[in-house]
Amino acid sequence: MSQPQNRQFRLAARPVGLPKDSDWEFVTAPATAPQDGELLVAVEYLSLDPAMRGWMNEGKSYVPPVQIGAVMRALGVGRVLESAAEGFAPGDQVSGPLGIQSHATLKASECRKIDISLAPLPVYLNILGMTGMTAYFGLLEVGEPKAGETVVVSGAAGAVGATVGQIAKIKGCHVVGIAGGPDKCRYIVDELGFDAAIDYKAENVGKALKTSCPNGIDVYFDNVGGEILEACLAQINLRARIVICGAISQYNATTAPKGPANYLSLLVNRARMQGMIVFDYADRYHVAAKDMAGWMAAGKLKGREDIVEGLETFPHTLLKLFSGENFGKLVLKV
Amino acid sequence: MSQPQNRQFRLAARPVGLPKDSDWEFVTAPATAPQDGELLVAVEYLSLDPAMRGWMNEGKSYVPPVQIGAVMRALGVGRVLESAAEGFAPGDQVSGPLGIQSHATLKASECRKIDISLAPLPVYLNILGMTGMTAYFGLLEVGEPKAGETVVVSGAAGAVGATVGQIAKIKGCHVVGIAGGPDKCRYIVDELGFDAAIDYKAENVGKALKTSCPNGIDVYFDNVGGEILEACLAQINLRARIVICGAISQYNATTAPKGPANYLSLLVNRARMQGMIVFDYADRYHVAAKDMAGWMAAGKLKGREDIVEGLETFPHTLLKLFSGENFGKLVLKV
Repeated sequence: MSQPQNRQFRLAARPVGLPKDSDWEFVTAPATAPQDGELLVAVEYLSLDPAMRGWMNEGKSYVPPVQIGAVMRALGVGRVLESAAEGFAPGDQVSGPLGIQSHATLKASECRKIDISLAPLPVYLNILGMTGMTAYFGLLEVGEPKAGETVVVSGAAGAVGATVGQIAKIKGCHVVGIAGGPDKCRYIVDELGFDAAIDYKAENVGKALKTSCPNGIDVYFDNVGGEILEACLAQINLRARIVICGAISQYNATTAPKGPANYLSLLVNRARMQGMIVFDYADRYHVAAKDMAGWMAAGKLKGREDIVEGLETFPHTLLKLFSGENFGKLVLKV
Repeated sequence: MSQPQNRQFRLAARPVGLPKDSDWEFVTAPATAPQDGELLVAVEYLSLDPAMRGWMNEGKSYVPPVQIGAVMRALGVGRVLESAAEGFAPGDQVSGPLGIQSHATLKASECRKIDISLAPLPVYLNILGMTGMTAYFGLLEVGEPKAGETVVVSGAAGAVGATVGQIAKIKGCHVVGIAGGPDKCRYIVDELGFDAAIDYKAENVGKALKTSCPNGIDVYFDNVGGEILEACLAQINLRARIVICGAISQYNATTAPKGPANYLSLLVNRARMQGMIVFDYADRYHVAAKDMAGWMAAGKLKGREDIVEGLETFPHTLLKLFSGENFGKLVLKV
């Protein structure tokens, strides 16, 4: 079988601030034939995530940085074209770290088979993928919300935030989302059932939190960092839990990021601030996926994907995450 | 019985930056006779603590602020002169929130009797007092050190820090203290048995931590905040615990304090930063005191008090805490 042409984006330079076109190299070359234990996968959808910006930086983090000249790391879903691995056959749908490319050759052990009779492919990049797992374990294991408590989430119309808020509602909490713009705010209240929304672009977040959280904040799930983290720290309750999941406001900073000046609120309130990385919960993804699929089937949990077509649009599509333009889980259709 | 003259310091103004003489009013007046359930106590020793600076500020905290015109709040030990409360008799030694004064009239329910045959009075303001309790519960309950882990403590020659480090050694940890000046550094290593000391006045703390913590930091007990907190955040291990006990570098700041710019190290390392207030553990002080007394008797735990004589010296003696001049638990002998 002659190999198909693989089109891929490689990291050409480490970005300073927002990634520019010149930080990428677009390469077309024959796809690599799978060796023993490997698969060749036709990539169908790719997950675009804020964390990708961190992977582009040099230096120690929770995963090694993407090397200059390497294909950009990304999770994706696709269809097996060729299999040199036991248990996988052409036609199988799989998810895995496929990378920003049209054809991925990778170890079968890095992939898992998915069942598109249960949910359409892009859902496996959203609620049934890392996004949903991040929301589930971050909220429930690190945030530890109890029924009746107040949960605030930032990036609330984003893929993780929207799922966090809905799970918190399922658990009986008072849920307030912080999002940018009236459409996103309407969406999380009217369609997702949040109790209140704060439009950080139009409102003073501190003042709005006072109104929408009359009993203070018990759990703050932080996707953004910066001033919104400070505004929430100022209104936490005794023994509050702050989940540090991301800090999108800081990822493209070219000066040293600003730490939360009022972190001593943790002392006064005997509160904690704790980071989480979804990979730590891999051995229990199946538990979460079962819960999440059940909630989706019951109509209690909704996902929304913002699907952009065309692998070639990747450099510009990625930027939608940082401008706040995406509305729902950002997915690239190859 | 004619009442003795009570000499006391009242808060005259809310300080901006370091407390000045004009922030205090020194008043002499007859002591108040105890009413039903109260004691009149001749104050012998008073505990001077960094937390007092916070109590002088307006605004919500873990205890109400000291009101303008009120006697300055302080823990102390003394001898009962008159008792109108069951279970207390003249001559009993007690500890309690006596305030910066020579004669305190207060509810007996706020006091507890102490046994000076077990330890001299000032020890009840140090290892057997709030200081020791703070170290014990902060380290063991919030820091959760395990044998073989690396524990770093700042303000290490201070009353809380010195106790934290010694308890961590008792628990089998590698212990590194950060203190100011060669005398304090020698003391914590040579006399208290810390594994290493870092002189923040003479060394680059980040570089020194690399040398003295070859396996990274598992628990950081923070008494100081500021740049030292950042230096430690930069070198924490996976699932590290940062105990926020104080931030003496920030207490007199007249501009907004600086938050830890690298707090995302919590995310990368799935670490937590948690505040603690000793009063939350009041129902278990007796457990801690028993452990601590046992360790002291066994020669494993040493205290050092820096005793300054004269109630009238209070305004200047307090400042020793913030200049780092005190060496050991700062105690005022009335």
